[in-house]
Amino acid sequence: MLAADLVGVAVFAASGASAGVLKRLDLFGVAFVGFLAALGGGIVRDLVIGAVPPLAFADWRYAVTAVAASLGVFWFHPQLSRLRRPVLVLDAAGLGLFTVTGTLKALDAGVPAVGSCLIGMLTAIGGGLARDLLTGEIPVVLRREIYAVVALAGAIIVTILRGLGHASFWWLAAAALFITGVRLVALYRRWSAPVAAP
Amino acid sequence: MLAADLVGVAVFAASGASAGVLKRLDLFGVAFVGFLAALGGGIVRDLVIGAVPPLAFADWRYAVTAVAASLGVFWFHPQLSRLRRPVLVLDAAGLGLFTVTGTLKALDAGVPAVGSCLIGMLTAIGGGLARDLLTGEIPVVLRREIYAVVALAGAIIVTILRGLGHASFWWLAAAALFITGVRLVALYRRWSAPVAAP
Amino acid sequence: MLAADLVGVAVFAASGASAGVLKRLDLFGVAFVGFLAALGGGIVRDLVIGAVPPLAFADWRYAVTAVAASLGVFWFHPQLSRLRRPVLVLDAAGLGLFTVTGTLKALDAGVPAVGSCLIGMLTAIGGGLARDLLTGEIPVVLRREIYAVVALAGAIIVTILRGLGHASFWWLAAAALFITGVRLVALYRRWSAPVAAP
Repeated sequence: MLAADLVGVAVFAASGASAGVLKRLDLFGVAFVGFLAALGGGIVRDLVIGAVPPLAFADWRYAVTAVAASLGVFWFHPQLSRLRRPVLVLDAAGLGLFTVTGTLKALDAGVPAVGSCLIGMLTAIGGGLARDLLTGEIPVVLRREIYAVVALAGAIIVTILRGLGHASFWWLAAAALFITGVRLVALYRRWSAPVAAP
Repeated sequence: MLAADLVGVAVFAASGASAGVLKRLDLFGVAFVGFLAALGGGIVRDLVIGAVPPLAFADWRYAVTAVAASLGVFWFHPQLSRLRRPVLVLDAAGLGLFTVTGTLKALDAGVPAVGSCLIGMLTAIGGGLARDLLTGEIPVVLRREIYAVVALAGAIIVTILRGLGHASFWWLAAAALFITGVRLVALYRRWSAPVAAP
Repeated sequence: MLAADLVGVAVFAASGASAGVLKRLDLFGVAFVGFLAALGGGIVRDLVIGAVPPLAFADWRYAVTAVAASLGVFWFHPQLSRLRRPVLVLDAAGLGLFTVTGTLKALDAGVPAVGSCLIGMLTAIGGGLARDLLTGEIPVVLRREIYAVVALAGAIIVTILRGLGHASFWWLAAAALFITGVRLVALYRRWSAPVAAP
């Protein structure tokens, strides 16, 4: 489980570091944006449910994984640009995983159902929001593509599963896989949310 | 009291959603900016006074009201543009209400007077700050108009009232009305704060 | 100790207020950016270690110092522009001081070593991040110059000193002086961190 969590951290850190490299940030800036892209969502989740210090500061493996992935992008980004497709798949996997763990942690902390769904979604999209704000962009998750809505739907499924007493490892893994799958289909089919009529 | 609080949430959500529509955000983005514009100030207030999980996650009516108001703006914004004047009045009412409840909650949590005034003001302006940062603008509350200063003055009045033992419903309602009234006069007379000489 | 802390607050507030004046913010905006530049890092530190309400709200001297320094910049900024060199020295002193106190507070709150180093660094750079985000800039600390890395190295030194039982006043003061000195040398020699190859 921890291994899967750290894979999610590494992938989200890589997405943050890539944005930092594109914006010509220096070595520290790239590592910092990678750190927040990977761990910002979890930090907000932990602050909101009162789990202090947040896991990102309480367990050194999270920070080290995020920084190592960011430095890898800093040095090898020309070679990594060929890896765009695997990175999108791993990003979808991170979305599924962070949604499931975020929702569960909120429910376990006693947050009611609607709040837990929101916190689960925020865990999954918070890092991307921080990445875009730090690099001076309007967050991409607010503008196009089906991303956060998939996380929200996944969080609702997790909440229902747990309400029915089905929060076993296999059910939750299936939920994470489902979120990942829907995200990949949305990417492949270029689904996007509607924009308001002018 | 809850009904009044939810009116404030709906109005602030509408202001966030309008900004999102103008920036061509998608349906999710509009709802998210509306949510944070309505509840971001209260979330910061609750984190700072240690009330976790924040009310925005603990009571589903807040989130549902914010999202419903945002979706209303998304679908009906052409018709709503005629409502500019009532919206400004409701926004002033939200300013008064959020200042009073934010200051009181901080005082009740044992925060000293100066800190409680700052927290009350942050409760009232935090959502607008989040809205502007998410949509890539320098926050309007920092640039012009008398808005935050009215909230700060209102927070000081609430702190004095409570120190004198006058924190009854009617006194507090009068304070909220006073804040709302001063804000409306400032709007009508186009009062603005000074800018530094170049 | 408090006096030194308040000098750091005043200097960081002045840097925030200067940025606000340059962006043509109004009187309130200048004071608000100054407040967050001085106290934003400490607020995040206190939230992350569970010290609520944060010192910025619990002790009125912090807020009053930050606002007074900001108002001073608002009114006297033409005369202050000659003071660029002393301000850079004081800013380096603030960096040293905030790193040491931030790291120590995290260690005292039971945060493990790696997390405490990150929190110490965030305490020192958080205000500058807030200042740049509020004024619509990509944070300067992510783009150039050796600044955050000096704070991180200082936080590691503080953590080692405390692990060795050397957390006495004089050792800590020496650590703060060392951070300040390295920062000044980095400024004088125009050291900068590498940027990724295109």
